[in-house]
Amino acid sequence: MKRTLKATLEYIGTDFHGWAKQPGLRTVQEEIEKAFSIVLGHTISVQSAGRTDARVHALGQVISFKTTSEIGLERLQYSANALLPGDVLVKELEEKASFNARWSAISRSYEYVIINRRYMSPFELNRAWHYRVPLNTATMAQALKYFEGTHDFTAFCTASRPLAHFVRTVHETDLTAIDGEIRIFIKANSFLHNMVRIMVGTLIEAGLGKLDPDSIPAILEAKDRGRAGFTAPAHGLYLVEVEYGEE
Amino acid sequence: MKRTLKATLEYIGTDFHGWAKQPGLRTVQEEIEKAFSIVLGHTISVQSAGRTDARVHALGQVISFKTTSEIGLERLQYSANALLPGDVLVKELEEKASFNARWSAISRSYEYVIINRRYMSPFELNRAWHYRVPLNTATMAQALKYFEGTHDFTAFCTASRPLAHFVRTVHETDLTAIDGEIRIFIKANSFLHNMVRIMVGTLIEAGLGKLDPDSIPAILEAKDRGRAGFTAPAHGLYLVEVEYGEE
Repeated sequence: MKRTLKATLEYIGTDFHGWAKQPGLRTVQEEIEKAFSIVLGHTISVQSAGRTDARVHALGQVISFKTTSEIGLERLQYSANALLPGDVLVKELEEKASFNARWSAISRSYEYVIINRRYMSPFELNRAWHYRVPLNTATMAQALKYFEGTHDFTAFCTASRPLAHFVRTVHETDLTAIDGEIRIFIKANSFLHNMVRIMVGTLIEAGLGKLDPDSIPAILEAKDRGRAGFTAPAHGLYLVEVEYGEE
Repeated sequence: MKRTLKATLEYIGTDFHGWAKQPGLRTVQEEIEKAFSIVLGHTISVQSAGRTDARVHALGQVISFKTTSEIGLERLQYSANALLPGDVLVKELEEKASFNARWSAISRSYEYVIINRRYMSPFELNRAWHYRVPLNTATMAQALKYFEGTHDFTAFCTASRPLAHFVRTVHETDLTAIDGEIRIFIKANSFLHNMVRIMVGTLIEAGLGKLDPDSIPAILEAKDRGRAGFTAPAHGLYLVEVEYGEE
């Protein structure tokens, strides 16, 4: 009998070429599939809630896969973690009937961390984006609010395929700034490629006074990537949580 | 005219072979001397408050050096940081008459971090010691208190030279345990080689019930390294702060 398993992962993206398998490159998917395959005794193919890019971190990535093995969950989790390298961890493991990490997800939450100070602690290296020029965080927060709701995010997407569907619903946003540490939180039903990073790049331009925060609705409406800001670097980005509905 | 400068450093010890220069190895001292020498236009020789070992971290290492350069402090700090790699930072820089980072110090404070849970977050990798077996932290705290005061710490020192002076004064100790994260704080006038790490190894044995916490005074008195615990690994150790008297 096949069981469907749901696993929640935490990883530091720094030394990974992202989530998705690529020949000859170190990826989270390959490490995960390798470790579980060894313990389960058969190869597996893993579905993830979101494909994180190179250097993007995860505090709560969710994956699903099927197995014919009857191994206990606790033993499977312990053995997989013993085989996995230290920069990726299986935090939780459970059995779920008819569950697919990608298609069952109802929302994803990301956080972007900016250190807006003259100097950045070595302990924040590769874990936040060091942006030295002082930013007006009130203006950034004002711009951020315009992303809430259902919009066509074509202007906030990289390498768009012509037939894709660009409408997404942003459920919640939040910006906190404490002692020069700026945290930008965005929760949506799903995200386009580089969507958070382009939103952050656009907020930076608002925070510098180069972009009127009230121009966000017009940028969304114009669906023109050229009018949005630059793409903020990957290493400040965290996939925080994926939510699933009741079953 | 020669000026004496005092700098406070933060570094991640992971990729360093410790503080002290060693031919052919990457050390904090060498990176610091190289960066400051370029900006100052002459070579410098740096004194540190304490020589941290390979993989030991610092939140407040203090160093001193002399210069004939008249460069402003802010520009010197900024330029040195621009030349330094991301895993070491000059946090503060000031001018101090007749100051020596080693000989003027009146106390050093260290903290040791243990993750006492089944699993450790990838974000704690190399920044704390993962010790899976459950520890009795009340017993550890009881043992720790016996180190306070003035004692001969021969039993808590590696590779003792016969003529050295082994008496040290521990001014303050503290143990906190929150959600399996154990933090052991020790402040002393100065420390012997591996003193904190052997104290921590001994506390672990107390926490496992293998060593009676009330036996610490007898171990100190016996001056026998063999009766103390093992040496805890370097990567859980932080040099937190160095204090200096009034001038």
